[in-house]
Amino acid sequence: MNWKARLLALDGLMPSLDDEGRLAWGTLADAAEDAELCFLGIENGKACFAAVPPRGDASPRMANPQLWSLMATLQHEDLALYGGARSLVDWHARHRFCAQCGGSTVIAKGGWQRNCEACGTQHFPRTDPVTIMLVEHEGRLMLGRGLGWPEGRFSALAGFVEPGESIEEAVAREVFEEAGVRVRDVNYIASQPWPFPSQLMIGCHSFADSDELDIDTTEMAEVVFFTREEVKDALAGSGPFVAPPTHAIAHHLMHWWVRK
Amino acid sequence: MNWKARLLALDGLMPSLDDEGRLAWGTLADAAEDAELCFLGIENGKACFAAVPPRGDASPRMANPQLWSLMATLQHEDLALYGGARSLVDWHARHRFCAQCGGSTVIAKGGWQRNCEACGTQHFPRTDPVTIMLVEHEGRLMLGRGLGWPEGRFSALAGFVEPGESIEEAVAREVFEEAGVRVRDVNYIASQPWPFPSQLMIGCHSFADSDELDIDTTEMAEVVFFTREEVKDALAGSGPFVAPPTHAIAHHLMHWWVRK
Repeated sequence: MNWKARLLALDGLMPSLDDEGRLAWGTLADAAEDAELCFLGIENGKACFAAVPPRGDASPRMANPQLWSLMATLQHEDLALYGGARSLVDWHARHRFCAQCGGSTVIAKGGWQRNCEACGTQHFPRTDPVTIMLVEHEGRLMLGRGLGWPEGRFSALAGFVEPGESIEEAVAREVFEEAGVRVRDVNYIASQPWPFPSQLMIGCHSFADSDELDIDTTEMAEVVFFTREEVKDALAGSGPFVAPPTHAIAHHLMHWWVRK
Repeated sequence: MNWKARLLALDGLMPSLDDEGRLAWGTLADAAEDAELCFLGIENGKACFAAVPPRGDASPRMANPQLWSLMATLQHEDLALYGGARSLVDWHARHRFCAQCGGSTVIAKGGWQRNCEACGTQHFPRTDPVTIMLVEHEGRLMLGRGLGWPEGRFSALAGFVEPGESIEEAVAREVFEEAGVRVRDVNYIASQPWPFPSQLMIGCHSFADSDELDIDTTEMAEVVFFTREEVKDALAGSGPFVAPPTHAIAHHLMHWWVRK
């Protein structure tokens, strides 16, 4: 039997980095006596765990510039591991009670479940599907700036898939709600998990029938069609707007579109 | 102002049908005094609502043969409306308490949100992304029979997308866990909402590197590779296995594969 194990070093939900800029790890002895531990998997022969922090964080992804810039420095592998671990422990921290009866819940199945001590209901980590879409019209790409975003920052429109919708229906509804435009020929491009708190980003491409916008000003500050050249320049850091960072799926979707 | 409204007739979570086999509707007066009402949308100039039933139902989809056969008779439009409404009211019925603090929650935003009366946390309807995948090897298709399924019934393998995974990673992990086979070239085919209780089914195709199976017997009773002819015959009702019903995405994926 191999008892080797390590504990992901977290300060609340923030990662700690070692001298080489990699995720820092400790031992299970570093966990508090009463800490709830989630099993993340085995890597290099060691079982990897993360402890559930006292508090979760469901604030919007843009709300923590410190984490945002730190994530940009992480290697892909560390980013994926941190993202999955963060989603999981954050879910536990925000689900200490049973939605069915209000009773206390306890961690189960190594962290992939919580059980209610009062009524026995089983609860499972949540992942919300979100569509994020390129909308094209006569060779130009629709991008938006959400309310409260910094001036000049644009990205693809996005929105949660609602109960009863397919991916394609969610894309069409969201674009119509936010920009007032009908789309057709929705195609899936790529997907990516996003840990604020736990989304599955589903990237699609579609064509708009028109570029006459009717913007929902309760959600969007601006919606603009940019030329291929403008999007290309923005991705290179010298365009008419600030593009999403490289670790966001919107960045990859825009690259895909520029090369298409 | 137009006050026209109608209430979806539900017996618990079961739909009621009128003489023409369509979904039955009543008026808001049919709702209990203290009923929580969810706004479903406007159709033919009437606002459509559904009332949250006393109890939800998170039992597996196969557990209710009566509903199963009733769904097969519904028109596509009614099936979509019932599915979305069922997912929504079922979520409300199972989320009367706050997972954050255990306090009571109340319906908000016309049924698209619940708010905690104690700590103010906002809760949103949940939809779980699930991958369902065709796995092909040298012109044959891998299908499985889950534990507890009737003898002879086969469908595509499927599993929840876990926090930290992309769609493509979830497909590969799930096939390896359930059948012991590595897959490559995962491609998205189609998606469909599934209301038991609220899944987004994400249909994919992939190629297996081998047909040497190592089946997880805690989940699957059988995993078998069928020829195109066998799958074609099964879809026509005369094959070596019972295919999924026409309202399931697995049926459409298998049709897509037969025609490919």
